[in-house]
Amino acid sequence: MELEFLGTGAGSPAKQRNVTSIALKLLAERNEVWLFDVGEATQHQILQTTIRPRKITKIFITHLHGDHLFGLPGLLSSRSFQGGDEPLTIYGPEGVQDFVRTALRVSETRLSYPLSFVTVQPGTILDDQTFTVVADLLDHRIKSYGYRIVEKPHPGVLLVDKLQADHIPAGPIYAKLKAGEKVILSDGRQIDGHNYITEAQPGRIVTILGDTRQTASIMALAQDADVLVHESTFGKNEAKLAKQYYHSTNIQAAKLAQKANVQQLLLTHISARYVGRKIYELIQDAQSAFANTRVVSDFDIIDIPFK
Amino acid sequence: MELEFLGTGAGSPAKQRNVTSIALKLLAERNEVWLFDVGEATQHQILQTTIRPRKITKIFITHLHGDHLFGLPGLLSSRSFQGGDEPLTIYGPEGVQDFVRTALRVSETRLSYPLSFVTVQPGTILDDQTFTVVADLLDHRIKSYGYRIVEKPHPGVLLVDKLQADHIPAGPIYAKLKAGEKVILSDGRQIDGHNYITEAQPGRIVTILGDTRQTASIMALAQDADVLVHESTFGKNEAKLAKQYYHSTNIQAAKLAQKANVQQLLLTHISARYVGRKIYELIQDAQSAFANTRVVSDFDIIDIPFK
Ligand SMILES: [Zn+2]
Ligand SMILES: [Zn+2]
Repeated sequence: MELEFLGTGAGSPAKQRNVTSIALKLLAERNEVWLFDVGEATQHQILQTTIRPRKITKIFITHLHGDHLFGLPGLLSSRSFQGGDEPLTIYGPEGVQDFVRTALRVSETRLSYPLSFVTVQPGTILDDQTFTVVADLLDHRIKSYGYRIVEKPHPGVLLVDKLQADHIPAGPIYAKLKAGEKVILSDGRQIDGHNYITEAQPGRIVTILGDTRQTASIMALAQDADVLVHESTFGKNEAKLAKQYYHSTNIQAAKLAQKANVQQLLLTHISARYVGRKIYELIQDAQSAFANTRVVSDFDIIDIPFK
Repeated sequence: MELEFLGTGAGSPAKQRNVTSIALKLLAERNEVWLFDVGEATQHQILQTTIRPRKITKIFITHLHGDHLFGLPGLLSSRSFQGGDEPLTIYGPEGVQDFVRTALRVSETRLSYPLSFVTVQPGTILDDQTFTVVADLLDHRIKSYGYRIVEKPHPGVLLVDKLQADHIPAGPIYAKLKAGEKVILSDGRQIDGHNYITEAQPGRIVTILGDTRQTASIMALAQDADVLVHESTFGKNEAKLAKQYYHSTNIQAAKLAQKANVQQLLLTHISARYVGRKIYELIQDAQSAFANTRVVSDFDIIDIPFK
């Protein structure tokens, strides 16, 4: 499980940072990549990475501002052009479907794969064997969502080598032992499954927020997350500006990360004003409020280990 | 008058070539830049040039395939974000307005300048003091236009130094002389204006075609052009493929340039299959049919001198 940042800028593309897109790479977990936001030229950024568009099976849009949205028609078209045939689902606020369908209709683009849309509402928007995704509303000029991606626990693995070393013959009892049950063998030995399975691993939690002011919903979205991706459009002494423009400061994000008991904070959506010395200060100031903070750059890859 | 190629690829962006956009820089002529097609990430390409988005006053879309269109909402938004306030007009086939208006509505983008649309029909679509633009239909899978941009003649300039050297006093007669009239001075001398004005310069002609098969309308669009920009999606021995996919070969474009008495042929819309040795052959083969041919690359700037 890795995050790869395809665009870390705010508002307009700049030479140093493209507009927003984040890839959650679930290759080991599901052989899939999920995208969060698709700013213009996200497909161009992907060309510089090892990500293959056909692996992208789900796209989550936080909000419909252009710097998070306008790369969608091109990415969808190129995924088709490259022969992708696996279904793709787009989750987002109402309006994303209108935009995409209009773009495809006007350009007479026929996709080579089934495309479906889920209009996001606060609550659980996805729940399958390995992951749950919960959405909640943030506070931006336009409807903006945060997503909490929760991996289900990995159950313990049966230690087959140990079973065989102890001369416990394979058969239906292996399934019982794997489920942690106690069984009695034909030779009279009583065996406890717990001695033959590895410890279950709790799943990881990744929280990715759209653009937002500070608001109560963030806490529940971010609580105990392994990684929190939070916007940082403004710096230390700009809380007023942040509020006025419905954004957050680096310090607000860091304080929230501390309160929510987050493992790591990744700051993104960095204004083009922040370069050189100013970006250094942005990092330092945030770290003084929450030590494990990083300001990400385009193409940064962040591994998310088990706890 | 210069052409700057912002994207010279076909279909999908590639590392070497972005999708189509061409800037016609009319800075000396009108202090304006006109764009022809706006593929995704055109605004990103512009960041690498000296072009300022606010100088872009007219955008001509040849056809609505995504690789010629999908950069439009982002470019319009950034032009606004950067404080552009001069009106902008978009010329294109029916559907471009639907796409742009949907993108702006869904993203709640309010532009800082007046935006208007002209649905192109075959014929003269623009005619003002310095330029005429004529459009005609080509032959592509989707409605595709070619544009013939005709600069009006530059009238002769009055040679004031020569007038003064000949002791011809300034006054209302200067205007008559400039208009090429004959006047009689108070000292009885008869003066012919033609001796005191530089020769009028014929305007330049630039023809920019959308994606197309070979078709009759191209000849009239390209006739006597100083520069013809023609797609070259396929190579020498691929005429069948070109026809099948509604595109042209390098040789077809070169033969047309020869027949139409064009000064210079610029081949663009180059497939990602053409790199290294193959691009060299693409050039050589075309030049054997029309010597003054160039295969353009992203960021090539072509000056268009007076004849
Ligand atoms: Zn944003
Ligand atoms: Zn094309």
